[in-house]
Amino acid sequence: MSEGGLMKLATVALTVGLASGAGGFVQAPPARPAQEVDTLVSPEVHADRRVTFRLRAPKAAEVTLRGDWMPGQAREKLVKDEQGVWSVTVGPLQPDTYSYSLSLDGVAILDPRNPRVKLGVRSSTTSVLEVPGAPPLPHEVRDVPHGAVQVNWYKSSTLGAVRRFYVYTPPGYEKKKSARYPVLYLLHGAGDTEGEWTWFGCANLILDNLLAEGKAKPMLVVMPLGHAAPAGDMRPAVRGQNTKLFEDDLLKDVMPAVASKYRLAAGPKNRAIAGLSMGGAQALSVGLGHLDLFGAIGVFSAGSGDDFETRYQALLAAPEASNRKLSLFWIGCGDQDFLLQGAKRLDESLTKHNIKHVFRLTEGAHTWLVWRRYLAEFVPLLFQSGKR
Amino acid sequence: MSEGGLMKLATVALTVGLASGAGGFVQAPPARPAQEVDTLVSPEVHADRRVTFRLRAPKAAEVTLRGDWMPGQAREKLVKDEQGVWSVTVGPLQPDTYSYSLSLDGVAILDPRNPRVKLGVRSSTTSVLEVPGAPPLPHEVRDVPHGAVQVNWYKSSTLGAVRRFYVYTPPGYEKKKSARYPVLYLLHGAGDTEGEWTWFGCANLILDNLLAEGKAKPMLVVMPLGHAAPAGDMRPAVRGQNTKLFEDDLLKDVMPAVASKYRLAAGPKNRAIAGLSMGGAQALSVGLGHLDLFGAIGVFSAGSGDDFETRYQALLAAPEASNRKLSLFWIGCGDQDFLLQGAKRLDESLTKHNIKHVFRLTEGAHTWLVWRRYLAEFVPLLFQSGKR
Repeated sequence: MSEGGLMKLATVALTVGLASGAGGFVQAPPARPAQEVDTLVSPEVHADRRVTFRLRAPKAAEVTLRGDWMPGQAREKLVKDEQGVWSVTVGPLQPDTYSYSLSLDGVAILDPRNPRVKLGVRSSTTSVLEVPGAPPLPHEVRDVPHGAVQVNWYKSSTLGAVRRFYVYTPPGYEKKKSARYPVLYLLHGAGDTEGEWTWFGCANLILDNLLAEGKAKPMLVVMPLGHAAPAGDMRPAVRGQNTKLFEDDLLKDVMPAVASKYRLAAGPKNRAIAGLSMGGAQALSVGLGHLDLFGAIGVFSAGSGDDFETRYQALLAAPEASNRKLSLFWIGCGDQDFLLQGAKRLDESLTKHNIKHVFRLTEGAHTWLVWRRYLAEFVPLLFQSGKR
Repeated sequence: MSEGGLMKLATVALTVGLASGAGGFVQAPPARPAQEVDTLVSPEVHADRRVTFRLRAPKAAEVTLRGDWMPGQAREKLVKDEQGVWSVTVGPLQPDTYSYSLSLDGVAILDPRNPRVKLGVRSSTTSVLEVPGAPPLPHEVRDVPHGAVQVNWYKSSTLGAVRRFYVYTPPGYEKKKSARYPVLYLLHGAGDTEGEWTWFGCANLILDNLLAEGKAKPMLVVMPLGHAAPAGDMRPAVRGQNTKLFEDDLLKDVMPAVASKYRLAAGPKNRAIAGLSMGGAQALSVGLGHLDLFGAIGVFSAGSGDDFETRYQALLAAPEASNRKLSLFWIGCGDQDFLLQGAKRLDESLTKHNIKHVFRLTEGAHTWLVWRRYLAEFVPLLFQSGKR
């Protein structure tokens, strides 16, 4: 749209879309006062995959940028031009879907010129940056058959509140009226909500692409809300209730609602649970606590605490029974993840007790950049016939 | 959480949700560096329906607030305290779901402490404020059976792009496997996208509530993306293409996809089209252009241009045929709407030519505060047996 230059403020009568030439107002614009429309472009992804960020803030003294492609706590400084527009160009970046925030004189904000927002549970300070490229990413929109994502409102008897869960149905679900499908329960992290695996994690597109390539079994993916205790309250006592309350909501409210509405294949071999960060801890706790229900577990960027071997003593003491029940126990963590020690501790405990599992130590930190890839790697291993 | 006072910055190790006490890290917190978590609350809705907005910005010189409950272009000024937190208390406000923006030294931003965002098509500068109250609003979440909203990805052959449309299915849709449903195509405005009738317009909750009260026929509501020409390009020539391209996408791509996937009742008497603002102009143009397809039209906060009587000469010259085809032609506009003259012009043209229609002149401006109410008023009139 622009050649890297700045777009000037254009005064445009807000007849947009109404000036349709088809029963519209081309000849007789409505009387709304003309309004300043900022046409500044941010972020702008250049052909060479460098990216320019811009913020119009003539009165600001300092503007900085923090993106999830940056190591550690690094920030980039933006520079102001004579029109009061701050900008910085970074990269080239590897093709991917990133998140970033701006700091405007110390106030953390998202990029107001960018309509793509990463929703949060406690705040809204994060924008989304998409850098397209070849080869296509596992989560890229491709010209393949698409499944759909259904947002379900339900009354949680456990929590006394109306909440939502998302359900991915694969392409053809409506046509194959008698087919029954295995189901993956996929859990988000502490900063996110039930929509994030769809809107930022692109779980549905990852499944679409794997299915189109014949790399996965058609399955449902249920994405519930992992916050059961108040999400903003971070006292350990409250956080400590969360896993138990979430488990009750999942088992007593979400799972029955899913079973009553969708065509599910029966039995634990057709049921998996996985999650990232807080959701990884939940998948571990709910999954290991209910091997009668779940035949596969995925733990992304989480691990075990000191009490793991005590808590799961019975399970660890009978590896043959545990291994028979769990067809897949998959743990992934990035080498820069602040939870890496917990993931390693989990791997070591399982190894020590001969519990079969996969431990994938990858590059990366505690970000969505690894979680989309973990899902793309985990899903093809699920619901393979002949196992369990 | 707070008594209207300010919460101080709390330094909290980000073990939230991982400190689960269940395989978590209560005794052994991970090594992530402690991080400042801002627990400032904004907006805070008080029991008396006054609302306090807060922004921590010690270095700012001016912070103002603009909400859609305010008349004209009015703004409220926030005042800074000794901790650098700006605040203002407004209201009491009538119970409703509002949108608002902040201005930080002239930079339009949403409220970073508020996780509820009104998504936009070109920017992200608007937060959502919910003021609950009695009697319940038509769009409030109630303890009634809930339908679901399915997000569908589809390849538009018209536009060569993968796009999305949302579909509301009423409670019981999955159980009543042989039932067929009438369908309302519901269009958004120029600043919005396909998700807005769900996420901010609460169309699904409005339908749930009307159905629970027996005030509406069970129906599907299809919410497509109304931007077919590039949404950011506001030149009249480009905007002029939009209605035609949207019509092609709707008729050739969206409607066939809907018909192939969902159980639709046949015929124009089971098909309606309505929209707000840009979507109202589209509903008018597509609906009147295809009376063989649509038996009901709703135009919310839009109207006709000077060319209306020329363009629809044939239709206006044969009122009996038009009236036989259209079981409902509903026009609503607020008395403070900048498009009121266009709506009045449409009403006058239709009246002059004896085209049956409803013209509802209400209180209100060009905001979602009227559009939710229009939907709640329009939907009960749709698909009544015996008509057409």
